[in-house]
Amino acid sequence: MRILVVNVNTTTSMTEAIGEQARSVAAPGTEVVALTPRFGAESVEGNLESYLAAVGVMDAVARYDQPFDAVVQAGYGEHGREGLQEMLDVPVVDITEAAASTAMYLGHRYSVVTTLDRAVPLIEDRLLLAGLSQRCASVRASGMAVLELESEPERAVAAIVDQAERAVREDHAEVICLGCGGMADLEEAVRERTGVPVVDGVRAAVVTAEALVRMGLSTSKVRTYAPPRPKRMTGWPLGG
Amino acid sequence: MRILVVNVNTTTSMTEAIGEQARSVAAPGTEVVALTPRFGAESVEGNLESYLAAVGVMDAVARYDQPFDAVVQAGYGEHGREGLQEMLDVPVVDITEAAASTAMYLGHRYSVVTTLDRAVPLIEDRLLLAGLSQRCASVRASGMAVLELESEPERAVAAIVDQAERAVREDHAEVICLGCGGMADLEEAVRERTGVPVVDGVRAAVVTAEALVRMGLSTSKVRTYAPPRPKRMTGWPLGG
Amino acid sequence: MRILVVNVNTTTSMTEAIGEQARSVAAPGTEVVALTPRFGAESVEGNLESYLAAVGVMDAVARYDQPFDAVVQAGYGEHGREGLQEMLDVPVVDITEAAASTAMYLGHRYSVVTTLDRAVPLIEDRLLLAGLSQRCASVRASGMAVLELESEPERAVAAIVDQAERAVREDHAEVICLGCGGMADLEEAVRERTGVPVVDGVRAAVVTAEALVRMGLSTSKVRTYAPPRPKRMTGWPLGG
Amino acid sequence: MRILVVNVNTTTSMTEAIGEQARSVAAPGTEVVALTPRFGAESVEGNLESYLAAVGVMDAVARYDQPFDAVVQAGYGEHGREGLQEMLDVPVVDITEAAASTAMYLGHRYSVVTTLDRAVPLIEDRLLLAGLSQRCASVRASGMAVLELESEPERAVAAIVDQAERAVREDHAEVICLGCGGMADLEEAVRERTGVPVVDGVRAAVVTAEALVRMGLSTSKVRTYAPPRPKRMTGWPLGG
Amino acid sequence: MRILVVNVNTTTSMTEAIGEQARSVAAPGTEVVALTPRFGAESVEGNLESYLAAVGVMDAVARYDQPFDAVVQAGYGEHGREGLQEMLDVPVVDITEAAASTAMYLGHRYSVVTTLDRAVPLIEDRLLLAGLSQRCASVRASGMAVLELESEPERAVAAIVDQAERAVREDHAEVICLGCGGMADLEEAVRERTGVPVVDGVRAAVVTAEALVRMGLSTSKVRTYAPPRPKRMTGWPLGG
Amino acid sequence: MRILVVNVNTTTSMTEAIGEQARSVAAPGTEVVALTPRFGAESVEGNLESYLAAVGVMDAVARYDQPFDAVVQAGYGEHGREGLQEMLDVPVVDITEAAASTAMYLGHRYSVVTTLDRAVPLIEDRLLLAGLSQRCASVRASGMAVLELESEPERAVAAIVDQAERAVREDHAEVICLGCGGMADLEEAVRERTGVPVVDGVRAAVVTAEALVRMGLSTSKVRTYAPPRPKRMTGWPLGG
Repeated sequence: MRILVVNVNTTTSMTEAIGEQARSVAAPGTEVVALTPRFGAESVEGNLESYLAAVGVMDAVARYDQPFDAVVQAGYGEHGREGLQEMLDVPVVDITEAAASTAMYLGHRYSVVTTLDRAVPLIEDRLLLAGLSQRCASVRASGMAVLELESEPERAVAAIVDQAERAVREDHAEVICLGCGGMADLEEAVRERTGVPVVDGVRAAVVTAEALVRMGLSTSKVRTYAPPRPKRMTGWPLGG
Repeated sequence: MRILVVNVNTTTSMTEAIGEQARSVAAPGTEVVALTPRFGAESVEGNLESYLAAVGVMDAVARYDQPFDAVVQAGYGEHGREGLQEMLDVPVVDITEAAASTAMYLGHRYSVVTTLDRAVPLIEDRLLLAGLSQRCASVRASGMAVLELESEPERAVAAIVDQAERAVREDHAEVICLGCGGMADLEEAVRERTGVPVVDGVRAAVVTAEALVRMGLSTSKVRTYAPPRPKRMTGWPLGG
Repeated sequence: MRILVVNVNTTTSMTEAIGEQARSVAAPGTEVVALTPRFGAESVEGNLESYLAAVGVMDAVARYDQPFDAVVQAGYGEHGREGLQEMLDVPVVDITEAAASTAMYLGHRYSVVTTLDRAVPLIEDRLLLAGLSQRCASVRASGMAVLELESEPERAVAAIVDQAERAVREDHAEVICLGCGGMADLEEAVRERTGVPVVDGVRAAVVTAEALVRMGLSTSKVRTYAPPRPKRMTGWPLGG
Repeated sequence: MRILVVNVNTTTSMTEAIGEQARSVAAPGTEVVALTPRFGAESVEGNLESYLAAVGVMDAVARYDQPFDAVVQAGYGEHGREGLQEMLDVPVVDITEAAASTAMYLGHRYSVVTTLDRAVPLIEDRLLLAGLSQRCASVRASGMAVLELESEPERAVAAIVDQAERAVREDHAEVICLGCGGMADLEEAVRERTGVPVVDGVRAAVVTAEALVRMGLSTSKVRTYAPPRPKRMTGWPLGG
Repeated sequence: MRILVVNVNTTTSMTEAIGEQARSVAAPGTEVVALTPRFGAESVEGNLESYLAAVGVMDAVARYDQPFDAVVQAGYGEHGREGLQEMLDVPVVDITEAAASTAMYLGHRYSVVTTLDRAVPLIEDRLLLAGLSQRCASVRASGMAVLELESEPERAVAAIVDQAERAVREDHAEVICLGCGGMADLEEAVRERTGVPVVDGVRAAVVTAEALVRMGLSTSKVRTYAPPRPKRMTGWPLGG
Repeated sequence: MRILVVNVNTTTSMTEAIGEQARSVAAPGTEVVALTPRFGAESVEGNLESYLAAVGVMDAVARYDQPFDAVVQAGYGEHGREGLQEMLDVPVVDITEAAASTAMYLGHRYSVVTTLDRAVPLIEDRLLLAGLSQRCASVRASGMAVLELESEPERAVAAIVDQAERAVREDHAEVICLGCGGMADLEEAVRERTGVPVVDGVRAAVVTAEALVRMGLSTSKVRTYAPPRPKRMTGWPLGG
């Protein structure tokens, strides 16, 4: 089985980290291919960048010329999953949704700890649309920018653990979702300090994608995610 | 006052129709400039096309080199409004939301009548995110494709009026929103046959944009719609 | 175009202030007529007074013997708008709803800052019924009585600004609605201190009423707001 | 114990019927006093009439010069209960809410069958505000006007039973609430035909009021229903 | 009239206290019979114990060999009420629901103060299922275990009053529900310190059960609570 | 890895069928052990039986004396999952929830097709509590009893396919969940006739359990699902 794991930003070191994270949980026999969009922002921290990422991810998948069995969109709170579902016959799993769905098996309520405060409403909106917000205790920001997770790892750990602890203590979260593709290394630290299960979206999405493939299930094509109708397109695929 | 009214598809005859519709209600002294995206689909009827439109609309506005006072995004149920809000200091009004907000002043519940069945979930999602779905009685599809509204006007009128009547009779809608940028000519027919007020999104959005400008109000920049952070962007603006 | 702007209390200085506020935003050619109920409370700060105001406003409008094009009910969180809609053929706009609808164009979430704590549940109820509460971050009380806004302006400004700042900081409001007909002068102070857009309900309602008239739209008469059925009425219009 | 049961319309034969209905369930030692408003409509079937009734009921209670232990507002879907709660120290029970609360002890979902279609949104709004709508399967109209319940009893029974049956069969209601003060005689007919429990609001409200009195409980005065603040009132109590 | 009041735990001193509490409010002519399950936990403070209690309560009622008119399940936030409703023809009232329903007649929002933090989600779940959570301001834990209410009464009073005061001040509760069968003695203390009405679930359930019986109403048997279908059962009734 | 798959009824042929269904999707190296409760009903079709099943399942797991890595509760819409989560350190997956979570990856809305009409509210309640109901289009009953699925397979297929088709056509479901442990053989028939993905709860739960184990995740013990407190238990484990 081959799973495409698509980064939403153009920073290849993040793509590599996401790929490794995916491989750490993939079953034997699963090949993980990590893709980077050809255009977009070096980190996605807002709607403009996220819409661009939605198209960048679709473009990256459209250009991939080998067969594959599932796609994981590895951006937390980003737009675009629905477009991929229309475009493809194989299952598509968004890490925001996979993390939340997984967390709901583990506790009565979960919280998400993410990067900047401005990302909070995007994540809240994605959870609302996905029908996964009822048991969300809170979405909290650590105040760290996406790229600071790499450049200032110690400060990032401290800030994220602090918010995770507050989510457990003040918001009654029983599970923490790490709300960014680049937070995987933090799992252990957050779990130790809070004493609650910690869900990484990339890992959750990969095992979910594998499970769907194994059950022979894929996106319903009967209505919302039917293939695009044949029509005149200008400038798509982008860059010809 | 100059208002940009941006079509979401690449069909210029629809851009012109939308522009005329906007001008029909604009106050004296308001100049309406209708824009067409440089890339995208000839009609937007699904998520892939809609995400492409989101970027296409941002691109079209970014390339417009004259001053303007507000932007109307003239696609029903489409992605992208949040990106424009980040990018701009002037008010941004989406026609889906303007139609619903306007309808809520006029009746206890409203329905939307749109084109294809596959557009229904997109509109429902947009209303849910906008916090405008509580009083939505239904979103109904006429079964007409966007371009058929122009090419088969008689059949379109019949199909749309039929759904509007059912919305009033079966779903207890008291107001009908025409759920497509290209449905403006149908207002009169639907009103006559159903006896309820009919709201066209383009017209509603234009008067709303004018009202916001007159009150000196624009998008809050404090959190969700703060300007994108300065960072390395690849391939944006698109096409260099 | 003539718009009736109806105060909900019997304090004529407040009626005058509301009228001025309305005129400050009305389009050229719009005449604003400010009305005061013949009976009721000098300030409306609770349900008993608000129900009395509902009837007082209907009475005031029923007695007005000149033609008019729209009615604005200028009480924040008050009962009565639905009765006016039944009674009249022209559009009716409530300032609570106009402020919230306007705020929703400007930010992801909005808060209302009002007078006394006891007014909070009334406003929450009105927003719930209007289907506008989903994106309401909070309704906060300044602890100032309605008439103290006039008699103790400095203390009022301080108290209201304080709550507005807390709404932005603690509740993540991105827009502030001034939750009282008599708070118009505070717009500037609140905007400066919080850095977010501030919506005054009277101004929002006036431009909304103008917009509805310009679009030729009015209340749907098909169900909820059909005219009262002909029947024996005792003591109405009140006072004979 | 003395309970005031207040009709919302000015038709004294309905007041008498409501009083009898109340007495049929009252405990030994409970005196039921049925009051009629001095002003208002002969039947309440819309918002204007309902707001007038809200004030008429408060006026009737204010004029009653004997001690009493509780008040029942006997109008289905009407405004005004909150005003009575501010005005009085004794418990106030609205029949719309008492019927729904009672029905919720008896089945998974309940429906309300009322008079005219235009009353449906009023009842829905009252249930929504009361926090009792989650388990409401439907509010259905029989098409009979309030006064026709008395003047055309046979047709009324047929129409109401028909809607009750549809509520059970189509909407999965397990309990029926009779949605009008004047429907008490129909209980038996509806129960026989549908096989489900039938709740009459007046009866439910009377036993609820008795229960509250027996437990020594009354309206909380700490916030929403605090007594009106002392202030200058014009024309209240009405008619001097 | 005979009402069975069934404790959910096996501590007979609590059964006696619950029985007394029930009798303190029962009407003359109502006989209260307090039952203790034959198996289960000495105090119910979690889901495993609560599921066991659900079966223990059904078993206790099934073994009771005299006629009775209603059943009160006297555990706060416990499972099982739906099973009793299937098993019996007489009304079944759960104290969690009776307390909340009663509180909703008395104030705009209510809070529940219960024992241990781990009981909070159980109570929230019961209120959500019952459709009674919309007006619930909060469920707060005192940190006292069920049996500590008896063994450490002074500390219990202090802890519970403290949470009740915070519910009123911070969560805007206007009514307090005592969230445990064994808290009846605390009513007076909480009322004095908070100034708001205090609802004890056992008392509320008993008067509600009496009221249902007096109205001749019982559980709807048409769908959810139809009698169990005849089938092979193993080990039930338990213990042969 | 060893997964216990626990039937909720006492019919061993159903336990075997569930076990086979589980094994059909389990990964190489996963051992599936199917357990049958020692007491309870031969089929679970209501609350009384379901509460008994909750305890029967806990009893069966408590008696299992070998190590295991996860538990699947194989009853659709049944009580009990929360008790298992308290009792165990390994992950617990309920088939109702696993089916719904899985369906939400595949389409915009899903429906459940179950056995008898009386099971519908139980399933709706479980989905509501689990926070998975927002995207549930409907829960539909085929009218077939649980044991009839085995005894009358042809009629069962016809009835279930019929409801599935109506769910897709009338309720806009895009995915069908088979709402009973014993419906596994129907997957193919329903998929062929409706053209939409069909999710079997047992299979979905098994792959989910495997995925949780592989990620090293299990139930949060910090609050709701903390182990039962040490206390005097009577008659538990049941039967000594």
